Amino acid sequence: MSSLIAVDLGATNLRVAYFKRDQPPPADSIKVPTLASQGPDAVIARMIETIESILPARKKKDLRIGVGSPGPLDPFRGVILDTPNMPGWNEIPLCERLAEHFSCPVVLDNDANLAALGEWSHGAAQGTKNMIYLTISTGIGGGAIIDGKLLRGAQGLAGELGHMSVQSGGSQCGCGQHGHLETLASGPAIARRALALLEAGEASMLAELVDDSEPLSAELVGLAARKGDALAREVVGEAGEHIGRHLASLAHAFNPEVIVLGGGVSRIGELFFEPIERAMRKHVMHPAYVDQVRLLPAKLGDSAGLVGAMVLASQA
Amino acid sequence: MSSLIAVDLGATNLRVAYFKRDQPPPADSIKVPTLASQGPDAVIARMIETIESILPARKKKDLRIGVGSPGPLDPFRGVILDTPNMPGWNEIPLCERLAEHFSCPVVLDNDANLAALGEWSHGAAQGTKNMIYLTISTGIGGGAIIDGKLLRGAQGLAGELGHMSVQSGGSQCGCGQHGHLETLASGPAIARRALALLEAGEASMLAELVDDSEPLSAELVGLAARKGDALAREVVGEAGEHIGRHLASLAHAFNPEVIVLGGGVSRIGELFFEPIERAMRKHVMHPAYVDQVRLLPAKLGDSAGLVGAMVLASQA
Repeated sequence: MSSLIAVDLGATNLRVAYFKRDQPPPADSIKVPTLASQGPDAVIARMIETIESILPARKKKDLRIGVGSPGPLDPFRGVILDTPNMPGWNEIPLCERLAEHFSCPVVLDNDANLAALGEWSHGAAQGTKNMIYLTISTGIGGGAIIDGKLLRGAQGLAGELGHMSVQSGGSQCGCGQHGHLETLASGPAIARRALALLEAGEASMLAELVDDSEPLSAELVGLAARKGDALAREVVGEAGEHIGRHLASLAHAFNPEVIVLGGGVSRIGELFFEPIERAMRKHVMHPAYVDQVRLLPAKLGDSAGLVGAMVLASQA
Repeated sequence: MSSLIAVDLGATNLRVAYFKRDQPPPADSIKVPTLASQGPDAVIARMIETIESILPARKKKDLRIGVGSPGPLDPFRGVILDTPNMPGWNEIPLCERLAEHFSCPVVLDNDANLAALGEWSHGAAQGTKNMIYLTISTGIGGGAIIDGKLLRGAQGLAGELGHMSVQSGGSQCGCGQHGHLETLASGPAIARRALALLEAGEASMLAELVDDSEPLSAELVGLAARKGDALAREVVGEAGEHIGRHLASLAHAFNPEVIVLGGGVSRIGELFFEPIERAMRKHVMHPAYVDQVRLLPAKLGDSAGLVGAMVLASQA
């Protein structure tokens, strides 16, 4: 049995987990700051050092490494093409660099695709064959399992389910394009919408909760919604409607049996899931597209990507 | 080697082809009116009769039948669930009915999915592994090949790529929902848009071409566009922009290597493909999503669905 290392490379944090076998939980895990501004060479050196620090010396022989990173990236070549939030990451052959050091197989995929793989293999969608995953936080990422296999597409760029145009001429998205679901229902979109209503003079407990040290966030909106605040509930409901409408479209395209929602915003819970489910049912072209679909909260939390990276490594 | 019968059940015409081997062209084919208003029993009797008329008597032993029909339908059970344009087709076990008569395997799928399968196996997308197909005519249907397999989803309802919401609160679609691509870029949508501009007083040769015997159609708009008519070119360009924007979204989701466009409206040709390609490039979040994608016209014309039904039957 191989030892497995899973790496989750984020713009803020770099997480590494060591698995003794191809099952969660990891035997050990560690989180360090990415310090992305130092550029790829420094980050890769820190990644190697962090892996070394967690990997028992006797386990270096039969090792496999799986890495999740923001995209776009090329999983077939193991190259990060371009990562908007990490300066200097253009055409970086990350797998080759790690393989040179550790002399072992190294595999790479998009962080949201790996979270989908994690939730499918060991989380909310275990035992299913066709699943869609959305992670709703600062952005909206996605992944799909089709007939028991991660959807990667011709160049491994598939699964960007939050970057689909749902509004002609809509606002600008983090990716530079317009009218994507992310512009309407991500955490920052929810916070912006609540702020606009507050500034328009609508009454809300959010006016008390927000100050200079605590800016308006989707988390605060969720908190106010749970406390019964009408403005917050309206904003959460609107975001839910956008997501539900898009899930209806994704059901028409993919016809999944399970849809899993993860990411910080999904933790708002029932007040968010309820309008999503309602909108999805309202927007499908035939009840068959929802009647046998389960809409579930993610189970693995922040670990979904690490678990997915472990699964990918175990198959390498 | 089995004999293969392919059936294309349409609201207007019923087409049957007999293949001696699992390759086009068919040895024989026939088209009769569906007469859908007579209800499922009469249509199924006509289908059986038409198959009998084309199938050599000595070929009845080792036979397989593949049927394409408008959806939604359940390909796993061989049941047509509900076909909006054919009254009375609710929960009709078409495969069972044909299998009872012919005592052979009978398989069924959505007509657009089968056209995708046809174009992939013997048409424009031959030799590829990841392909998206749109057929643009009275409606907009779709299909996807993922890793060399037709995308069917959990209940076989996948691939409705024209029924995805691209405009919040948009106009009503043939399927009853709102803001789908079909409402913006199908043949009737193109004709409606041209008519609206004509009625608003814009000059166009379409005013001469249209009369009581020749209503305004996408075909006429395409003809006028090819003759240089500015209004017609504007309308074709707008529809192309909507399709290209949606293809960018589909590229983010599926990352295909080939996109094939079929259906009557696609025959407008270069004047339609050019704005589609331009819009797709404009709307992708990274050039990698278009640089290696080929946008191709369908090759098999009206036969794509029959060829796909034959391929499905050959695998039964």
